[in-house]
Parts: sequence; structure tokens; C-alpha cells
Amino acid sequence: MRGVSIIGIGQTEVREHWERSLRELAVASITAALDDAGVDRADALYVGNMLSGELTGQEHLATLIADFAGLQGIEALKVEAACGSGGAAVRIGYLAVASGLHDLVIVTGVEKMTDCESDLVTEALAMAGDGDYEAMQGLSFVALNALLMRRYMHEYGVSHEDFAGFSINAHRNAVRNPYAMFHRPITWEEFRSARMISDPINLLDSSPVGDGAATVVLCPEEKAKKFCPTPVTIIASATATDTIALHDRDDPLFLQAAHESAQKAYLQAGVSPEDIEIFELHDAFTIMAALSLEACGFADKGRGVELAKDGEISLEGKIPISTMGGLKGRGHPVGATGVYQIVELVQQLRGKAGANQVESHLGMAQSIGGTGATAITHILQGPN
Amino acid sequence: MRGVSIIGIGQTEVREHWERSLRELAVASITAALDDAGVDRADALYVGNMLSGELTGQEHLATLIADFAGLQGIEALKVEAACGSGGAAVRIGYLAVASGLHDLVIVTGVEKMTDCESDLVTEALAMAGDGDYEAMQGLSFVALNALLMRRYMHEYGVSHEDFAGFSINAHRNAVRNPYAMFHRPITWEEFRSARMISDPINLLDSSPVGDGAATVVLCPEEKAKKFCPTPVTIIASATATDTIALHDRDDPLFLQAAHESAQKAYLQAGVSPEDIEIFELHDAFTIMAALSLEACGFADKGRGVELAKDGEISLEGKIPISTMGGLKGRGHPVGATGVYQIVELVQQLRGKAGANQVESHLGMAQSIGGTGATAITHILQGPN
Repeated sequence: MRGVSIIGIGQTEVREHWERSLRELAVASITAALDDAGVDRADALYVGNMLSGELTGQEHLATLIADFAGLQGIEALKVEAACGSGGAAVRIGYLAVASGLHDLVIVTGVEKMTDCESDLVTEALAMAGDGDYEAMQGLSFVALNALLMRRYMHEYGVSHEDFAGFSINAHRNAVRNPYAMFHRPITWEEFRSARMISDPINLLDSSPVGDGAATVVLCPEEKAKKFCPTPVTIIASATATDTIALHDRDDPLFLQAAHESAQKAYLQAGVSPEDIEIFELHDAFTIMAALSLEACGFADKGRGVELAKDGEISLEGKIPISTMGGLKGRGHPVGATGVYQIVELVQQLRGKAGANQVESHLGMAQSIGGTGATAITHILQGPN
Repeated sequence: MRGVSIIGIGQTEVREHWERSLRELAVASITAALDDAGVDRADALYVGNMLSGELTGQEHLATLIADFAGLQGIEALKVEAACGSGGAAVRIGYLAVASGLHDLVIVTGVEKMTDCESDLVTEALAMAGDGDYEAMQGLSFVALNALLMRRYMHEYGVSHEDFAGFSINAHRNAVRNPYAMFHRPITWEEFRSARMISDPINLLDSSPVGDGAATVVLCPEEKAKKFCPTPVTIIASATATDTIALHDRDDPLFLQAAHESAQKAYLQAGVSPEDIEIFELHDAFTIMAALSLEACGFADKGRGVELAKDGEISLEGKIPISTMGGLKGRGHPVGATGVYQIVELVQQLRGKAGANQVESHLGMAQSIGGTGATAITHILQGPN
């Protein structure tokens, strides 16, 4: 298969966009990305989205978006892998270019979640778990993560406050990202005293749902310089899955799929965790940030929280994460998030991350579905 | 890209499977297909499904099915293109093998639609059209097709009875397909006097919703004989899209996407419509059968119905369609249908179609989403 480069990026702010429809958000990010790439057409559009049917009454989403983006006729398909849908769509786009099938591909992640009853959103998000054996038993998605967090605290003897660094870091980085949902730093005291959501997960452990869209434009590596002076190359794309339900896992505190997909990605790229300079991980909840760092080889089991406590995850740290705010600070429009991660990594690797710039050449993004049941990992290499 | 062959097929009966869950249906078809291929594992699972979230409360579907099929760990993604979801999943599976990414891939189409309120199904199916500009205005999916049919009758001066041949043919073929939903032939008189659904579409113009799952196992062409004495080769895979809404099309009576995807497929396979010996088309409504035949070059505009009147679509005719019952007779579990079409084509090309056998070497299947907004066309070549 041939190399694949990213030649254009676009994104909308993550907000409660009550005045903009699902299609408008998607088209805005596509228009920006096509402008950035300097092209006005592509061969295919792959859309990452989880909940357009449930929350906005629209399936057949990719064809609809292609139509309203002025791209009638092109191949258009939607890819779904719960909260990992964005990463999954990037993977299919990568495959379409790597295989030689298409020369110019658009990947868009989009989700609209705030213009409906919040109970409906809670119900919809529970569909990321096992509908029959988790959701039907009353387990919301945050409750599943709360089980993980409580178990982690028990097994490893860490306190709730030990997770504070993840949220403080994410909010600090979001302040200087104009596309982020939150622009207010939080303190340790605010974290500690935030309203409880599902014990031990409180409001500031949790990423917010939001409306938003992000897009990347892909082309073969050998043609990338024609479109873009600073193309970023996808040097690894890998996926793995685990049991859908938490209760079926041998060790719920080890994200096996995240581990396997990262290992495959390291192998494909010929790198090791020490080479990764930025890690855009799936910090839907603080517990997921800790578990992701451990699964991907950045910390031993039970020690992920220490990276947060010691400041190693900050922009100046050993392994900067959530550099533009992450899910916690930028916001988490679920099916769009995996594409936002790639867009932000491209900003970093191009040297266009503004005040949040991390000098870097190699970055990793990991998109996770459910409580770790699906993991899609991409490693990107910058032009410099 | 390398050649891709189908080495295993499996399917469940299309029924009101109130006693079997979505995952059970999917796993049953996967087990059958893996048995047929003589393998017990694969590298990836791609699932075609439209409405699992809306109708059964489950997203993250592909990972769930991989899990319950005993395939934990493998890549698993869901692909959605409304009623064309099954064909879209086959396309992604084809791409994954053709590219060299994977050597053994499972593609499953599954849908469960009958164990809920029928109003909910009507609402859900309307999501295949334009949610804001069609569904919100009160247009159900059958109503959109009724607009097409009425216009066709007006433009070309044909009567409702002229469409009878499509349904009579489909039901006749379904009688001898044990997996089909209906096993009762229908008469011209029954067709003519059936209950009106959305004028001029009556009950016997319409395919029934149903529950069911179908699976194919794919591998590289050069390895196929190792698994299967009679591999069937996918010699073309092509897609195209059109405007999502009917009212945006220059000529609503010409299925532009079906035409374009068929033309691309003919080109890739190096064949013309005259070479196609079986055409499994998307006869969700009789009008769609007529329009598909015209779009794909089997009849001039406005003359598709004549093929039905003259018996040319029967098993002995010039272009047999719906040879195992089609959507009308086998049933239409929407996201699964595109995979059923491929399974049935493989039965034919292997010479295993029983009483419905058409002597054939080359067959085409076309999976359509919405009122023709997405079309995915595959051409298959038999082993003999």
C-alpha cells in the first residue's frame, strides 16, 4: 500500500450550535478543509458519526453531506464505532487512499447533541455499551466509567484528587484553542468540589457533549507536496477490539484493544512510545486518560495518574496530551472527536498550534469506542 | 489492487424473529458463513446496518457482533448508507482485501425491524431521505416512492397494472427459497386489488420489512481455491451518489447514481449489460425495479415495465431479476439486504440455487440507499 498524507484540515468550534444544523456544521468544516488543501472536489467522503439517527432524525448521512457540500456523485459512506467513529472514518479514508482506489479523499466527523432533551442523550450514549446486558440493566455510559474509576482507585490505592491533573491540563490547553468549548482554566479546588455525576466521577472528570464537525483531506504521499507545503504523513493506522461489556474482560483496568492497536501502530511506524512527542488520547473521563496512557506504554499499570500529578502530560512535559484541550476542554461531539484529534495533531506537526505549540515531529492519536471496546490508533509524522 | 473472492456465505431466514436478538441473528449468519468457508477466524468484520440504534437501542454494533461471534480483538466497524448499507459494507470488505490490508474478511448485513411499533419503523425509514426537507414535511419513505411511481405513470402513460410482473416474479421465485419471508405466489388479480398504502403504491408493490442477517467471507483471489472449490470472484465494485432529496434532481425518473455506479462497474469488469446473466436489483418498490433496469442499461427510459410484462425478468428470461425472491419476496431487512443479494448471487454462480437455478457465469447486484441517492454495484463471476 502507498503512503497517505493529510493536505487539508478544517473544524468548527465545539459549542451548543442550536442555530446550525448537522449538515451545516459538516459542510462548514469541509469547506474549510478543502480551502486549506486548495482543492474543490474529492473522490470520496467518509463520515464518522454515532448518533445522527437517534438525536437529529437523519441516517444516510454521508450522502446527505456530500450533496450539501456540492459534491454530488462522489462515493459517500458513514462509518460507526460509537465514540470511536471519527477515528474509524479516518481509517477507512486512509485505506481508500493507501490502496490506490482514490487519490483525494475527505474524512469528516460530525455530531449534533445539544439541541434535544438531555435524557435522550444519556440514553443514546448508553448504546456505546452492551444494550442488552449493560444499558438495559440501568447502566448509563458515565456509570460504566464510574465502575472503572472506583475499581482503579481501590486496586491502586489512589484518590479521586489524583486525577485532577488531567482536567486541569485539558482546560489550561483549551483556553488558547479558539475552537474549544471551554476557555476557562480550572483549579485543583474546583476539581475537588465539583458536582458529583456518578460516584466517583464528578462534573470535572467528565468531558462535555457538544456540537461540532472536523474534516481532513487525504491524498497519496507522493502527490502531497503538490497541494500543501507542509503535508503531514499518516505512518500508521491500526485498530483492535475487545469485549463490548466490561464484565466480560479478564482485567477491566487494562484497555486491551487500546494496547493492541497501539502496538500494531508502533510496529507499522517502526517507533516506540519513547518516540511519540504528542499523544491525543481519548480523555472522555479522567479515568480513560489514565488507562490509555498505561495501555499505550507511557506508564506502568496503576501509574498513569502519576504522569498527571508530575506535570509530565503538560505542553512542556515528557508526553504532552490533550494539547488543544482534549475531549475534556475542547469538547466531545462523540462521532466527530476522532477527527478533531487528527486535525489538532496536524496543527501541531505543521507548527501552527499557536500558543499551545509543542515542538514535535511525531504524534499519535487514539480514538476509543465504548469503555475501550474499540480502539483506532494513528501515528502522524510532520513535514519538518 | 488484487482480486477478491467470496469463499463462504451464510444467511438466516427473513422473518419476524421476535425470539432472536439482533446479535443472535448476526452471529447465526456468521457461523454459517465461516463453516461454509471452512475457517474459524478472520482479520476483520464489517457490518452493514441502518437502524440498530433507533429500533433496538444498540450502536457500536460491529464490535458487539465480533465479540458475540467469538472474534474478540479483530477490526470491527459498522458502515451505513441507509437501505444500501449492506452493499456499502461489502464494498469496504472488498477494499480491505483488495488493498492487501487483510487476508480474511467477514461482511455481515443485519437488521431487526419487526419487534417494535410500526409507527417507529415508518419514522426510522424516513431517515433514508432528507430529514429536514422531506421527512419533516410529512413525507414517509413509501410516499417518496409513490411520488416517483405516479410521475412515471404520467410521463410514460403506463398503468399501475403494468408493474404487476415485478411482484408476481419476485413471489414466484421466493416460494422455492427457504430463507425467503413469503412462500406464496401472487396473482395478477391479487396484485391489482391489494390494499392501498400510498397511492399509487399498494401492499403488493411494496417489499416487507423483516428481521434477518446475511454474511459473506472474502479472501484474495489467489488464495480462494485453498478454502473453497467454487470461489466466486468480485470483478467490479463501484459506488456513486445523487442528491439526497427527490426535488433536487433534474430528472427524478432517472436514477443517476445507479446509472453511474453500474457504468463504473461495467468498465472495471470489462463487460456490458448484455453480458450480465442475473441482476439482483433493489426492488424495494416495483417502481424501483423499473427505474433500476433503465438506469443500468437493460431498458430504455420508460420501458423498464415492459421487461416485466414480457416475462424477460423471469428465471428463463433475458435478464432474470430477484431470482431468490428479491426484496419483495425474500423480504427487506434494510441494512442486511445488500448482503443477501450477494449471498444469493453466489448461490446462483456456484450452481446451488436449487429449483431457482439460472445457468450463469456473470451476475450483478445493486444495493440502493434512499430514493436512489446512493448506489453500490458489484459484479460477480462464477467459478465455472
